[in-house]
Amino acid sequence: MEKKALNLEHLPGGVTAATGFFAGAAAAAVKYEGRLDIAVIYSTVPAAAAGIFTLNKVKAAPLLLSMKHLAGGRARAVVVNSGNANACNGEQGMRDAVAMAVETAGVLEIPEEHVLVASTGVIGKKMPLEKVLPGIRSAAGGLAGDGGALAARAIMTTDTYPKEAAVRLELGGRQVTVGGMAKGSGMVHPNLATMLGFLTTDAAIAPQCLKQALKYAAARSFNMVTVDGDTSTNDMAVVMANGLAGNREIDGEGPDFYRFREALAAVCTGLAVDIARDGEGATRLLVVKVQNAATREDARLAARAVAGSNLVKAAVFGRDANWGRILCAAGYSGANFDPDKVDIFLGDEQVARDGGALEFSEERARKILGGDRVKITVDFKGGSCGATAWGCDLSYDYVKINAEYRT
Amino acid sequence: MEKKALNLEHLPGGVTAATGFFAGAAAAAVKYEGRLDIAVIYSTVPAAAAGIFTLNKVKAAPLLLSMKHLAGGRARAVVVNSGNANACNGEQGMRDAVAMAVETAGVLEIPEEHVLVASTGVIGKKMPLEKVLPGIRSAAGGLAGDGGALAARAIMTTDTYPKEAAVRLELGGRQVTVGGMAKGSGMVHPNLATMLGFLTTDAAIAPQCLKQALKYAAARSFNMVTVDGDTSTNDMAVVMANGLAGNREIDGEGPDFYRFREALAAVCTGLAVDIARDGEGATRLLVVKVQNAATREDARLAARAVAGSNLVKAAVFGRDANWGRILCAAGYSGANFDPDKVDIFLGDEQVARDGGALEFSEERARKILGGDRVKITVDFKGGSCGATAWGCDLSYDYVKINAEYRT
Repeated sequence: MEKKALNLEHLPGGVTAATGFFAGAAAAAVKYEGRLDIAVIYSTVPAAAAGIFTLNKVKAAPLLLSMKHLAGGRARAVVVNSGNANACNGEQGMRDAVAMAVETAGVLEIPEEHVLVASTGVIGKKMPLEKVLPGIRSAAGGLAGDGGALAARAIMTTDTYPKEAAVRLELGGRQVTVGGMAKGSGMVHPNLATMLGFLTTDAAIAPQCLKQALKYAAARSFNMVTVDGDTSTNDMAVVMANGLAGNREIDGEGPDFYRFREALAAVCTGLAVDIARDGEGATRLLVVKVQNAATREDARLAARAVAGSNLVKAAVFGRDANWGRILCAAGYSGANFDPDKVDIFLGDEQVARDGGALEFSEERARKILGGDRVKITVDFKGGSCGATAWGCDLSYDYVKINAEYRT
Repeated sequence: MEKKALNLEHLPGGVTAATGFFAGAAAAAVKYEGRLDIAVIYSTVPAAAAGIFTLNKVKAAPLLLSMKHLAGGRARAVVVNSGNANACNGEQGMRDAVAMAVETAGVLEIPEEHVLVASTGVIGKKMPLEKVLPGIRSAAGGLAGDGGALAARAIMTTDTYPKEAAVRLELGGRQVTVGGMAKGSGMVHPNLATMLGFLTTDAAIAPQCLKQALKYAAARSFNMVTVDGDTSTNDMAVVMANGLAGNREIDGEGPDFYRFREALAAVCTGLAVDIARDGEGATRLLVVKVQNAATREDARLAARAVAGSNLVKAAVFGRDANWGRILCAAGYSGANFDPDKVDIFLGDEQVARDGGALEFSEERARKILGGDRVKITVDFKGGSCGATAWGCDLSYDYVKINAEYRT
């Protein structure tokens, strides 16, 4: 409801769009030769910082380290590598994550505790520090005010394109910028499946408010993306806010806080949609909107279940208007609704009414299902809450990519 | 623990293996011409009966009717059609399910309330009664003491072979037989995804004990099978016990009850393994055993998550010993365990120790992953409880089958 008043201006620049943020990247041959695989983000002044982390019981070493470093609510740099997840590596994994933080801190001359570490790639392989540390020196040595694009490239794994977003808004008479980058592609599922998200802003905001805003934004974006139902060991999203915009610090709920969190949500949603669209093997973006649910949670559960159903996804790939699978997925989602009241639309074409079949144009439905962006609307007609989830179709290529990933 | 003492003798005959059970089938062209699609099972005397039904919020009409008919704990016949699920058809769906029960009852001269109805196939299409009712007359008119095999064929949808099992055991000095048939293939997932199971026995057992035994058996079999994570609107398993074996009626817990439920579990497990092996597009059976968990529920959650992970399934299809995905799936399953203690085996080849990498023979692992039956063992080393789940790999054909199912 705040969106209209926000007047968000979309910008290029990603993580370096906000004042005082620099980024660098390097090709360190962590897994492949000649491919950017190390990124460093740096704030010229200490920043309030917050993060959210995978709910997987198995958490990779860099996550455990970053959680520890975030305890103080402050950070100044993030170092990320692709090609190796540094997960399931025992004590050696933690030593290696610490070494990455120490190296980054050394080059940037900041406290080790102000460095957050993230990794993505294959699980259970020792981090090749002999390659990673020189890579960090190179990336941190080449920091640039327009380095966001290269950094976004360096964190890709099976992503086919980099994912960046940035918006500007007015906050207390000041221009505030919020930017970010993300990687997704495989193993992407609600509650942050192998999804890395890095957000930067020059807003002045207290750490606890920043964390609250991040949770709000993630619940509406990253946590509503599903590619294959697997939640990874390495998912995380972190945000740094360095205050250089000069707005009065946001230290509690109020109009500025609400505006800020909507801006952060807009950036995260932009990144989330890109992640869904670029799901492994995806040929189409799936946008599932559940409306008129009794509660927001009901709407979220149902939207995610529909977007995540292998059967719905395969039907979309095959351009088959199989609305029964949509209703079925909503039915097992755990959401409360009356099955006999549900309406279902593919694009603007209504395909089911009151939980039952309806005459509709198969031809038009097939055309809608053939588009780059397939919108499915499920109307529970039982309340006023809604939610949107994003996913992709299930193609032969998904199987191919994941049958051959490690070897 | 009772299994050794059971001395189960495996028999042919499926649902007609037990004394007093007859079955018939007919080709009614419900969806395809010239294919068996109606089955009727009949007990010569009224039988104790129990059922379990999908947890999906959207329940097909035949399920709602069968649940009602089972309220009295008695039944004498089951009528099943494939080709049409009679789900999401509103009040018309219920009228059609009732018409199927009435027709069956009329031919067999039994009360309508003693007929259970089950349907499987496409969702949201009106049941073609003008074809189904003559089919019922034909199937019920051709009941035979060795009709189990034809009935098992008639309930198939995308199954590639019929699924039958039967065992004989001694119970209180009498020979008791337990038999069954099932269909699975698509949409198969814990808590009875489109899985139909029909069990028959000549044991004498009180209805409430029969229901308890069915729940016990299903928890260890049907509910541990996962093919694609979708839980259907039509899943059900029902059992009829007609008492013709002449054993003293089982009316409470005790040695006979324990022996009976193990026999029922053995039949259900045989059917469940066949369902997993025949998952849509499957090229291999996946057997996931979790051992030494703190609780049985932890073991079940983890085993099902591993067997159900798209990434694990695709890795098995690609013969890639990617144990990190196995640990990762256990990690998001909700099971409690210590990630640093987990050992993982592919067949007899240990691939991870204490949650970390281990030198192993990629060649041997690849050979194991290439077998018809791939066994994955996950040892939590944190207790004494275990569970086994069954699944299949994720192949190109799964996508193909489900992209083109309806059209």
